[in-house]
Amino acid sequence: MQLYSYFRSSASYRVRIALALKGLDYEYLPVQIVKNEQFAAPFDSIAPGHLVPVLKDGDDVLNQSLAIIEYLDETHPTPSLLPGDARSRSQIRALALDIACEIHPLNNLRVLRYLVNELKVSEDDKNRWYRHWVETGLEAVERQIVRNGAGGRYCHGDTPTLADCVLVPQIFNAQRLECRTEHMPTVMRVFDACMRLDAFSKTQPSGCPDAT
Amino acid sequence: MQLYSYFRSSASYRVRIALALKGLDYEYLPVQIVKNEQFAAPFDSIAPGHLVPVLKDGDDVLNQSLAIIEYLDETHPTPSLLPGDARSRSQIRALALDIACEIHPLNNLRVLRYLVNELKVSEDDKNRWYRHWVETGLEAVERQIVRNGAGGRYCHGDTPTLADCVLVPQIFNAQRLECRTEHMPTVMRVFDACMRLDAFSKTQPSGCPDAT
Repeated sequence: MQLYSYFRSSASYRVRIALALKGLDYEYLPVQIVKNEQFAAPFDSIAPGHLVPVLKDGDDVLNQSLAIIEYLDETHPTPSLLPGDARSRSQIRALALDIACEIHPLNNLRVLRYLVNELKVSEDDKNRWYRHWVETGLEAVERQIVRNGAGGRYCHGDTPTLADCVLVPQIFNAQRLECRTEHMPTVMRVFDACMRLDAFSKTQPSGCPDAT
Repeated sequence: MQLYSYFRSSASYRVRIALALKGLDYEYLPVQIVKNEQFAAPFDSIAPGHLVPVLKDGDDVLNQSLAIIEYLDETHPTPSLLPGDARSRSQIRALALDIACEIHPLNNLRVLRYLVNELKVSEDDKNRWYRHWVETGLEAVERQIVRNGAGGRYCHGDTPTLADCVLVPQIFNAQRLECRTEHMPTVMRVFDACMRLDAFSKTQPSGCPDAT
């Protein structure tokens, strides 16, 4: 398999974690988003959305991090990243989407660029925007984990799931932009538990081949 | 089952379509987002993220539209909204996420309110922002459907899938805000095919009990 990735892309980091949890080897192909390589050949022809990550598995070309992880979970079922019954699986997916839909899209590089370049939003206001969505979004995740009541060491039970693959990269972004996290004890306890696992720590941005 | 919904919420509309495609009956419980009812009892206690839709199925309380539809597909497998092999299922999910992660979150009511109320963005710039993400996002969906090469009447093959449940509500939003769509022939052909089905047309915003 080949993974088109950018070290600082949290969507790429999600897939790197899932591949590591499954124990799968892959070739790392860097795409420098800050240099707009996603719009240039050869990447633009395999990724019509111009977004990383993309996973190539033989002739299959897959995009969107959550869809890639679902694919990995179907083709390499052990360990399961979506364990339990239909309710558990739905709650795990919902936690992942609470981050992937409600937080991350608002703080993407292209969105921040649009705010500054097109809407002439100040640097201070851009950072306020960033922190607002991270903090209110993670507060909702904190409440949701508690409400689900699945307990355990990770987001949902005692094994890492899709939800943890999405949570950890978001916390990296939160810390990089100095968002408040100290009032989210469950979220941060889960983050710390994940970071004690090689699958999360060895795939982090600073460990990537393209890290600068 | 009970569905907490708001007639104009495109995330709610996705689930209404899926329930209709599955032929499932449910009680419609309106949540008036424009009146901030999502922050008040009783809804706030069952939806920690303060977002519609929420589906109650017995004691199970499920949020996030895509996770709800996955749950419905697992508990009521026929007709399948994620047909085919792992690659097909991943491509269908990716199309849904191309809209649910790359377009819709940027144009949510709460995001538009933040732009205007907090960042003091003008009404014209807010509308430009809206159309930018809808148009560039749907252009990527158009290219992705063509690239997948699955053919057929709908987004992926000859039966409606999760991707169609997400595409159609996004087109409603695009048309309401007068975004350009005429240069996306595949997307609009799929939209027209879907709207010929009762599951899409009878669940549309104007047909909801809370439509104003």
